[in-house]
Amino acid sequence: MQSRYYTITEYPEGLPGEEIFRLREEALPELNQGEVRVRNTWLSVDPYMRGRMSGVRTYIDPFELNMPLEGAAIGEVVESRDERFKMGDKVRHMAGWRDIAQLKGDELEPLPGHQVPEQAYLGVLGMPGMTAWTGLNRIAEMKEGANVLVSAASGAVGSLAVQLAKAKGGQVVGIAGSQDKLDWLESRGVTAVSYRDRNARELTEALQDACPDGFDIYYENVGGVVLEAALNCLRTYARIAVCGMIARYNDEQPVPGPSNIANILIKRARMEGFIVFEHWNHYTTFLDEVGPLVERGEIDYRETVEQGLERTPAAFFKLFEGSNRGKMLVKL
Amino acid sequence: MQSRYYTITEYPEGLPGEEIFRLREEALPELNQGEVRVRNTWLSVDPYMRGRMSGVRTYIDPFELNMPLEGAAIGEVVESRDERFKMGDKVRHMAGWRDIAQLKGDELEPLPGHQVPEQAYLGVLGMPGMTAWTGLNRIAEMKEGANVLVSAASGAVGSLAVQLAKAKGGQVVGIAGSQDKLDWLESRGVTAVSYRDRNARELTEALQDACPDGFDIYYENVGGVVLEAALNCLRTYARIAVCGMIARYNDEQPVPGPSNIANILIKRARMEGFIVFEHWNHYTTFLDEVGPLVERGEIDYRETVEQGLERTPAAFFKLFEGSNRGKMLVKL
Repeated sequence: MQSRYYTITEYPEGLPGEEIFRLREEALPELNQGEVRVRNTWLSVDPYMRGRMSGVRTYIDPFELNMPLEGAAIGEVVESRDERFKMGDKVRHMAGWRDIAQLKGDELEPLPGHQVPEQAYLGVLGMPGMTAWTGLNRIAEMKEGANVLVSAASGAVGSLAVQLAKAKGGQVVGIAGSQDKLDWLESRGVTAVSYRDRNARELTEALQDACPDGFDIYYENVGGVVLEAALNCLRTYARIAVCGMIARYNDEQPVPGPSNIANILIKRARMEGFIVFEHWNHYTTFLDEVGPLVERGEIDYRETVEQGLERTPAAFFKLFEGSNRGKMLVKL
Repeated sequence: MQSRYYTITEYPEGLPGEEIFRLREEALPELNQGEVRVRNTWLSVDPYMRGRMSGVRTYIDPFELNMPLEGAAIGEVVESRDERFKMGDKVRHMAGWRDIAQLKGDELEPLPGHQVPEQAYLGVLGMPGMTAWTGLNRIAEMKEGANVLVSAASGAVGSLAVQLAKAKGGQVVGIAGSQDKLDWLESRGVTAVSYRDRNARELTEALQDACPDGFDIYYENVGGVVLEAALNCLRTYARIAVCGMIARYNDEQPVPGPSNIANILIKRARMEGFIVFEHWNHYTTFLDEVGPLVERGEIDYRETVEQGLERTPAAFFKLFEGSNRGKMLVKL
C-alpha cells in the first residue's frame, strides 16, 4: 500500500513558505508482528509544530528533514498485527501529515467513547482542550471566582480556556483581533478586548477598563505587547501560565521583551511554562471533567477545516495568519 | 528628649541625590503607656527603600514626604512604659533613619541570643539573610546538589545566597563586577563570572563556560542583561526566585526587557517574585538553620559601615554605585 506524506526540505527562518514542503509517496512495507496500519481521517496542525521546524532541540526534537512530519491524527485501523486492535477501530496517534500511517500498537490510543464527533479528540477533548485545562488548573491553580485573562482567546486553546474559566470564574477577559472573534467572545459571556492598533500602554488601559480589579490568572499564548500589557494588570499573587508565544515563533531576530518584568516582583507573581505532554497522566481526569460538558453542548468549540491532504501546509500557515477560528484541522 | 531623623522632600526620578534628603530634629513627646524609647546603635539601608521613594504604592507604601524615613534598626531601650521591655534591652525595629526612636512595644522585637555581634541581626541573621534563605528554600525549593546561579553575588543578599547554596548545592556560580568581589567569590568556592563589558550574548557564553550543564536555580537580584543571559542558561524545570531588580530601580524610562522570555516555556521554568516580609513566619526556622552556621564562623558575611547618622544618605547611595561589600550599615 502507498502512503503519501509531507516532509520539509530545510529549516526555515521566519515564517515558513510553501517551498519548504514536499508531498512524497512511498510504498509501505508488510506489517511486522505488533504493527498496525491506519487510514487517517483527520490531521491536526498546531503552532508548536513551528518549533519543530527550527532545527534546534527546544522541548521536543526537531523534525527530521526529508522524513515524514509528525502530528496528532485520528484514523481507522485498516490492517493489524497487534491483537489489541482490529479493522475498523478508531484510534489517535502522532503519525499525522500523511494519509496512511504504519505504527506499533503501543503508539496508538483507542478513542474514548463520548458522544462527540471523532475529531473532537484532536481539539476540545484532545491536546488543545487538555492544554487549556492544564494551564488553568494545574499550572495557574485556578480557584473559584478568579479573574482570568486569556490571550489568543479565539484560538484552539484560548477559546476553550475562556469557557473553562467562565464555568468557574469571576470576570473572564479574552484578547483577540477581528470583530467576529470579539463578537464570539462576547456571545460566551467573556469580556472581549482587541489588541489591534494598540501599543502596550493602550492595551493596558483597555484591560484596566475591562477588569478594574486586575487578574488573578493570565493565560499566556502570545508574548510580545500582549504580555507586557498583561503584566501591568496583575493582582497580587497572580499566576501566569505560559503555554505558547506564537507572536515570537517566526521572529528572525530577537525582539526586546516586556520592559515591566519587575511586576513579577511587585505583585509576587508566578510565571510558569508548561508542555501539555508532560501532564498527560492527568488526561483521564480532564476527560472526566470536560467530556460531559462537551456531550451536553455546554462548550462551544469551533473548527476550521481544510479538505484533503494537499491542503495541510495551507492549514498550518493559517495558524500564523490569525485566519483560523478554533481548532485548525485537515479532513482527509 | 530630641530625635534627629532623615526625611525626603520630594519623590526623585532616576538616581536620587543628596538634595532630597533633610536631617531634621524634633522634641519627642512624653511616653504613653505601652510605648518604648530606643537609642539606635545600627541602621540598615537597603535597595528596596528606593521603591518607597517613588511615590507610588508597589508592594509597600511609599515613604511620606517630610516625615521620618523608615528602615530596620537595632538599638537599646532607654525608657519604657511597656512591661515587656526594660532599660538596656537590645531590640530590633523598623524606625531607622534616626538616632532616637519612640515606638509601641508591639513594634519591637527582642534580639535573639546567638553569639554574634548585634548588627548581624540586620544582615546575615536579619532581613538579607532571611531573603537569601527564603528565595533558595521556599521559592526556588532548592534540592541537594542543585546548580545555582546568583546575581549581585557579593551584595548583602547575594553573598549569603551563594554560601547557603554552596552548603548544599552542586555547582554555584556568582555574578559580580569588580575584581575584589570576584576574588572573594572564588575564595568561597564559588565560580565567579564578571558582568563587566559584556552584552547578553557574551555573558551567556561566560555562564555556559562556568557551568555547562546549566542552572536549576537562578537567584535574580538585578534584572537587565544579567536576567537575559541567565534565561539562556536554564535547565529544564529551573526555578527563578525574583527578589529584586536593582538595575531597574533608578530607570526614568522603561527599558526593554529580555528578548528570550520564551525560555520560560521551552524549559518549563518557573519565575516567582517574593517579598521576604510575607515569609516572616518562617524566621525562627531560618534562625535555627543559619544561626549555628554563623556562630561557628562558617558563613563569611561582610559589612560596609558608615559612621554617624549624617552618613546615612551616603550609605544609601553606595548601594547603587556598587561600592559596598556585603551588608551596608550605619553605626551611630
